[in-house]
Amino acid sequence: MKNLQAEVRPGAYYDSVVLMQLQKGLAALPGIIDAGVVMATDANKELLAAMGLLPDSVTAKADDLLIVVQGQNEQAAQAALAQVNVLLQQRQGRAAQAFRPKSLATAVAHLPTSQFTLISVPGRYAAAVAEDALNLNQHVFLYSDNVSLADEVRLKQLARAKGLLLMGPDCGTAVINGIGLGFANRVRRGRIGIVAAAGTGLQALTTEIHNLGGGISQAIGVGGRDLKEEVGGVTTWQALDLLQRDAETAVIVLVSKPPADQVAATLLRAAQSGPKPVIINFIGYAPPGRRLGNLFFTSGLVDAAEHAVRLSGEVVALVEKRRPLSGYLRGLFSGGTLAYEMLLGLQAVLAPLYSNIPIRPHQQLPDLMQSQGHTILDLGEDAFTQGRLHPMMDNDLRLRRLRQETADPDVDMIVLDVVLGEGAHPDPAVELAPVIAEAVRAGKRVVAIVVGTELDPQDLNSQIERLAAAGAHIFPNVSETLDYVYNRLPPPTRDFPPVSLAAFTGEGLTAVNVGLESFYESVIGQGGGAENARAVQVDWRPPAGGNEKLMAILAKMKSQ
Amino acid sequence: MKNLQAEVRPGAYYDSVVLMQLQKGLAALPGIIDAGVVMATDANKELLAAMGLLPDSVTAKADDLLIVVQGQNEQAAQAALAQVNVLLQQRQGRAAQAFRPKSLATAVAHLPTSQFTLISVPGRYAAAVAEDALNLNQHVFLYSDNVSLADEVRLKQLARAKGLLLMGPDCGTAVINGIGLGFANRVRRGRIGIVAAAGTGLQALTTEIHNLGGGISQAIGVGGRDLKEEVGGVTTWQALDLLQRDAETAVIVLVSKPPADQVAATLLRAAQSGPKPVIINFIGYAPPGRRLGNLFFTSGLVDAAEHAVRLSGEVVALVEKRRPLSGYLRGLFSGGTLAYEMLLGLQAVLAPLYSNIPIRPHQQLPDLMQSQGHTILDLGEDAFTQGRLHPMMDNDLRLRRLRQETADPDVDMIVLDVVLGEGAHPDPAVELAPVIAEAVRAGKRVVAIVVGTELDPQDLNSQIERLAAAGAHIFPNVSETLDYVYNRLPPPTRDFPPVSLAAFTGEGLTAVNVGLESFYESVIGQGGGAENARAVQVDWRPPAGGNEKLMAILAKMKSQ
Repeated sequence: MKNLQAEVRPGAYYDSVVLMQLQKGLAALPGIIDAGVVMATDANKELLAAMGLLPDSVTAKADDLLIVVQGQNEQAAQAALAQVNVLLQQRQGRAAQAFRPKSLATAVAHLPTSQFTLISVPGRYAAAVAEDALNLNQHVFLYSDNVSLADEVRLKQLARAKGLLLMGPDCGTAVINGIGLGFANRVRRGRIGIVAAAGTGLQALTTEIHNLGGGISQAIGVGGRDLKEEVGGVTTWQALDLLQRDAETAVIVLVSKPPADQVAATLLRAAQSGPKPVIINFIGYAPPGRRLGNLFFTSGLVDAAEHAVRLSGEVVALVEKRRPLSGYLRGLFSGGTLAYEMLLGLQAVLAPLYSNIPIRPHQQLPDLMQSQGHTILDLGEDAFTQGRLHPMMDNDLRLRRLRQETADPDVDMIVLDVVLGEGAHPDPAVELAPVIAEAVRAGKRVVAIVVGTELDPQDLNSQIERLAAAGAHIFPNVSETLDYVYNRLPPPTRDFPPVSLAAFTGEGLTAVNVGLESFYESVIGQGGGAENARAVQVDWRPPAGGNEKLMAILAKMKSQ
Repeated sequence: MKNLQAEVRPGAYYDSVVLMQLQKGLAALPGIIDAGVVMATDANKELLAAMGLLPDSVTAKADDLLIVVQGQNEQAAQAALAQVNVLLQQRQGRAAQAFRPKSLATAVAHLPTSQFTLISVPGRYAAAVAEDALNLNQHVFLYSDNVSLADEVRLKQLARAKGLLLMGPDCGTAVINGIGLGFANRVRRGRIGIVAAAGTGLQALTTEIHNLGGGISQAIGVGGRDLKEEVGGVTTWQALDLLQRDAETAVIVLVSKPPADQVAATLLRAAQSGPKPVIINFIGYAPPGRRLGNLFFTSGLVDAAEHAVRLSGEVVALVEKRRPLSGYLRGLFSGGTLAYEMLLGLQAVLAPLYSNIPIRPHQQLPDLMQSQGHTILDLGEDAFTQGRLHPMMDNDLRLRRLRQETADPDVDMIVLDVVLGEGAHPDPAVELAPVIAEAVRAGKRVVAIVVGTELDPQDLNSQIERLAAAGAHIFPNVSETLDYVYNRLPPPTRDFPPVSLAAFTGEGLTAVNVGLESFYESVIGQGGGAENARAVQVDWRPPAGGNEKLMAILAKMKSQ
């Protein structure tokens, strides 16, 4: 901590790019060892301290600009601080624009075709700017982080009601009509549409798709919290719906960290209800299978990109949607792992879901003797087999339960497994078929998963024939059974107006930028100065000079 | 509950098959509506009650046989109960065997080539029988459920020390030398070896493999709890090690519900250290990728079977193992999703592992300024970016941290991402390369994940060339980076004697069966009565007639 000199500028606001350049400029001056230029938040002061760049004497608040230099001697440090204004002026003299509106409203009036507003002001100012933009009927690309969850929820409800997308907050990237917003790799256009709650995840995915020879129709960022329970996947669902209607999009990819259960279920059912294949990459989520209905579950961004490129080049045969599930599904399994796989597959899309082998604690079936909601039972589980034979040998318990489920008017579908082989019942069909026939006569759909080979002692074909004759749909594994169920999922009710495709058509876009000037330069640059990427930079300053009290008063006046 | 008649036989023991047949026999008698024959455990009494088959007056304990019949009238019910002894004798007269030893020791003496003992006696007797079998140097197939976790741990430690496999408890199935044990489908032999903590999972997998045209070398069940923390994957590791040495096995499949983290890490490192591809299907586990090193992560049993059959038919090019990781890995990421993917990939195999974006709570890095153990940092996270530029634009923080990690003697490998594109730093290599070169000179291995396309403004090739010239290994995505790390994982230290391959060679086996007679009949039947499947059935009865007090005294006498 030798030869440190610091200067505090209370309430001074500069773009972070300016701060970085000031810091670099100071560090490059003669006799200077290191420099730090930051807004004096607690986190930043901690960082400075860790670098040995925080003099003990300094007191500065989050609103204040803190400039620290370490010189080889006292004089060099003082000389450097004296250069701060010169360095700041050098920067400010550079970028020039004919007209720099002071407010968002003026900017939009100046550029009336603008449909997007990019916002990268500091987090505590961002929500107010975003609200203004939505009220000016702009789709919002909200790069700013440190926006509260409550603000996010409020803004997204407003956007949804107005048929607008609020991409963000903390949305690092998007590619709209071929123009990258925020951080974005330059990639060819194509038939793959992306919705992503992950910033670099979206960049890595578009890059991988490009490098594999594929292309992007639209890539929509939604912010890292969109799929949390509180936010409810608002923007993701809007974007998914948009891409399902977009004629340029053949395949959709959905990327996120693992969503809240209920949010995942709604989005997957929305994805499944559409006419296009949807590739799911919930990073760190246990996939319920590889392909189920229209949905392709992948492991990792590379896997997702490979699938997307492959599918975008071929005609994918989607199963025609059939009569949707109109009641509960009840699974009566003799095989524990089959029950578990089934439960895993259903928990992604159905609720409420109960079991005696719950994956999540809230799925615990309270009374094993009585199913409720959708229920998956492992009848080979310890509680059912103490001192009695396993249900693979003894069908008694299962036959009784099958009759019980048949008698339940809320049940639509009953799923059974029939596991053949050595040691198992010599002829399960002879006992199961009559009771299955009763269920079918009572209007239930019955599915039998028959696990066996042609070498098994029970005669696989005869088992299948008799179960099918009783009216059961026969599948050889859980995977195909889940596919059957997914193709019969009831679609969720969409309770919001569709986002118009008008702003997401053709090449290029028109945008207003509030915040980091480099994002404005980037948009203009991608258009090559031509008409298809027009933008205006707002000369934004914190309201009331960043003074919190004054800001509160202004906000109150405005809302009256 | 009309016309119910019940009989309780205190302490009576019958094989569950006998109980099922008695129940069916009673239900088929004239004037009988329904019948229930069970050991009177609480669970079974609850089941009977749910079926309306439990008279209020009945008091019976878990040791007691409870027989209930419901007649069309009182007389029919009473007449049925009077038939119980006749029905029991009919059954017992059937199966006959020249010699029925009363004890396991006599059975093994009679069949000295026996290397496997199948045990399916009720759970509370099973541990003692299994211990006897291990002490007679038998591999144990323990079908019985309701065995305590403590007994399982004790038995598995004993088996491991003796170089024996304890398959189970609650092990439904295995296929050893082409002979199915317990419940097992008949499948062709082939080059795919399986280790499974899932009973029907193993059946479904072998069936799927067979139906796809593949075949099985050995399929080893380990019991559903083997991969829990308390048990530690003892049998799984032994079996994996066995299959890695088995010349007949070309591809290994490992199936389980999600294991405990530490158990998974050890087993995956053991799997990775071997010379064969290992297909992992942890059902309901978030896979860290598709292929990493020798490991192929799959989603669902069908996916696993398809992979196994495909790989068993081709020569898999495994990367030669390189200098293993000899210190900690530190990841300094600008991209949050890339950091998260990396963390997900590493948590499967490395511990202790810390992060500022932990997937599990115990991974939380206490001091963000100081890495510890293996650490993955997302430097674009809110705490690092308040009032300063994102690390994609401003390398300052990352360069400082890179120097800090270089100075740490416990660090072996440093991983960085370099995300190019619009909005990002115009030339990250110019700042990163010199500091990477310092790290390489200090003996660190540096990996750079360069995300970009040839259209990006930074010139992708020039970035890669300069980073490589500084000594960094370059990969285009997290997936290939994880593959690089997996090929350098230190193998876990195997602290147990290998299981001899002698019992797992050629066709057929010789076994002793204690418990369900149908398993004995099945083994004999699969050998077609020939020499390659020989078995002896033990005429087992509960010790001390099932009297708990007497059993305890006997056990005490035996241990002295």
